[in-house]
Amino acid sequence: MMDLIKDLAVQNHSKIVLLVADGLGGLPAAPGGPTELEAAATPNLDALVAGNVCGLSIPVAPGITPGSGPGHLGLFGYDPLRCSIGRGVLEALGIDFDLGSDDVAARGNFCTVGPNGEITDRRAGRISTDVGRRLVEKLRATRIDGVEVFVEPVRDYRFVLVLRGPGLEAEIDDTDPGRTGVPPRPPTARSPGSERTAALIGSFVEQAAAILEDEHPANMITLRGIARRPPMPSFEEAYRLRAAAIAVYPMYRGLARLVGMTILAPGSNWGEQVAALREHWEAYDFFFLHYKYTDAAGEDGDFDRKVKCIEEFDGQVGAVADLQPDVLIVTGDHSTPAALRNHSWHPVPVVLAARSCRPDAATTFGEAQCLHGGLGQIEAKYLLPLALAHAGRLAKFGA
Amino acid sequence: MMDLIKDLAVQNHSKIVLLVADGLGGLPAAPGGPTELEAAATPNLDALVAGNVCGLSIPVAPGITPGSGPGHLGLFGYDPLRCSIGRGVLEALGIDFDLGSDDVAARGNFCTVGPNGEITDRRAGRISTDVGRRLVEKLRATRIDGVEVFVEPVRDYRFVLVLRGPGLEAEIDDTDPGRTGVPPRPPTARSPGSERTAALIGSFVEQAAAILEDEHPANMITLRGIARRPPMPSFEEAYRLRAAAIAVYPMYRGLARLVGMTILAPGSNWGEQVAALREHWEAYDFFFLHYKYTDAAGEDGDFDRKVKCIEEFDGQVGAVADLQPDVLIVTGDHSTPAALRNHSWHPVPVVLAARSCRPDAATTFGEAQCLHGGLGQIEAKYLLPLALAHAGRLAKFGA
Repeated sequence: MMDLIKDLAVQNHSKIVLLVADGLGGLPAAPGGPTELEAAATPNLDALVAGNVCGLSIPVAPGITPGSGPGHLGLFGYDPLRCSIGRGVLEALGIDFDLGSDDVAARGNFCTVGPNGEITDRRAGRISTDVGRRLVEKLRATRIDGVEVFVEPVRDYRFVLVLRGPGLEAEIDDTDPGRTGVPPRPPTARSPGSERTAALIGSFVEQAAAILEDEHPANMITLRGIARRPPMPSFEEAYRLRAAAIAVYPMYRGLARLVGMTILAPGSNWGEQVAALREHWEAYDFFFLHYKYTDAAGEDGDFDRKVKCIEEFDGQVGAVADLQPDVLIVTGDHSTPAALRNHSWHPVPVVLAARSCRPDAATTFGEAQCLHGGLGQIEAKYLLPLALAHAGRLAKFGA
Repeated sequence: MMDLIKDLAVQNHSKIVLLVADGLGGLPAAPGGPTELEAAATPNLDALVAGNVCGLSIPVAPGITPGSGPGHLGLFGYDPLRCSIGRGVLEALGIDFDLGSDDVAARGNFCTVGPNGEITDRRAGRISTDVGRRLVEKLRATRIDGVEVFVEPVRDYRFVLVLRGPGLEAEIDDTDPGRTGVPPRPPTARSPGSERTAALIGSFVEQAAAILEDEHPANMITLRGIARRPPMPSFEEAYRLRAAAIAVYPMYRGLARLVGMTILAPGSNWGEQVAALREHWEAYDFFFLHYKYTDAAGEDGDFDRKVKCIEEFDGQVGAVADLQPDVLIVTGDHSTPAALRNHSWHPVPVVLAARSCRPDAATTFGEAQCLHGGLGQIEAKYLLPLALAHAGRLAKFGA
């Protein structure tokens, strides 16, 4: 499908906007009641639904609950089952680290080891972010021949390790054994091509152990999710779109960077994000705007707050529509029902507004109406091709 | 998808029940009329539908009419287009033969050959089951070096041949030429790895010909569908489910055995099957119950009897619901409309009941209401992942 889209994509002057309300989909708080989205007053979204087409987006596949990575890759038109993002890469993206396509990234934990090298605390007593920063500073003294080493703090006992240089591979097992009472494992290559990188990482670990020897409780490290960026064409290569992202949280900027979007300064709230959209309107073909707080409220199990967040989100949708994008898609990367306090697998309401859409009978934006919408239940990865089509950016397939 | 599920599956204490009414889906007897399911009084199923989610299950793909094998593999979460079950294997399963993963099975026919070895009757005058049994007994005198040989009667002129031993392969053509006037073909290997097995089967055929020489009309055999079990992970491996099957007919026990389910004594009717479920409730995580008579009535073209069978099936659904499984799925492996007197490709009504389901507007169990259900039209192979999700048995995919 991606190869087909690459072949068919053409350029024009149309504008496409994708608004993502994280964790938008929900469940009723009580049997027979409305979902969060159905309970919310959403005049702008309803107006969008009324004259256009809606449906339910399946983030990955039925029953699969996605994290933010697969959830967004699907919305960006990539098959989330084929492009999987390693934990180390995601951790690097989450701190706005500009990961190169050949870099190898790993998630690091400070830990405590006993006199025989056995792990006694996998999180080093959950040291504070300040202590973590100081220790990361010390780890920056490590040197590896022919490779640039980056060590970056994340939070508490967590950090990111990135190696940059030619010929690195990342088929390497975690050094974290996942339990206490045993020493960290050596970084072991799962393929011959990764043996050199495993040795380099081994050298880093050895130096780190020496550097941390006299620290307490964080006298050792473990590494997990050693990975490179998945090979994916950029938005420019795949779709011929100059794409920009406006997201407050680094993780979503990182995911956008992964597909070659330009990262715009987002301001610090939803209103400022939409103001940034207006400001940069002329310079790009595609805009991805990410709104985080719907998901956060859902994860807190706070139905009412999620309703309020949806209303705040809706409050700026009119301003976006006023820019008259040729295609405007509003959806979520997954559901986060307050009732489950977690991401879930339930399909996510989606509305697509464009002059060329075939309207359906839906008049308000909610799960029940979207179930009968004109898009049907559609895998998220097809929304981007649909957007291109409605924007007049996909040529005919075959003669 | 299966690899993903294997990675994400976790254990907990939830219970999942899958009730399969064979050939459940139907068609109206007259234009504008109800289907068999819609005509049936199904208070228990309707109660299930009312507070939960329903839809239509596509057994394999649009337009594809499945046999029992692909129909059930789909419901068990395996892609029926990738895991195909050879005819010989299905025949062995159908007589409760406990087929090992390295066994090679073939469906055998007794046939009649003329003086020049040409087949004159491919079914040996449809000899009776008694005669078939006597001849099978004689064939058990065959001996093949290094291989255990099983010959088992099926019915009339049909039998099963199973070879058991190391290194057997089954890329071997049928010996049945499919028409009269020509002699049986030699068993010919389609791959170098199968040449030895083809030679062993050739030896069996030669011995059988000698043994049957003086019989009439069954003086020869042909073999078809020479096959091994498809390589598939078991329910335990794929889903971390301790699974049990309760089925009256051997074919369905065989299909369940193929995916590693424990076969429980089913009694001889639907009430006893559900009693067995109750009895073994604590010992398993997943239960598959198979009800045969809906399909049989459909194949007989008996609309009214199929309605009665559906009502009998419904009569025990309340007792199953009373066990309070965390997830209860009720569906069929395919449609068998009485109007067609045969299996068909039509999507099959399905209802999924769980606390975490997003309810839809359906209030009774039938094709028309299921068409607008919240599951949409869903490939059967996704029902098992959905069940795992609703049971809290699938971890998040990606971070």
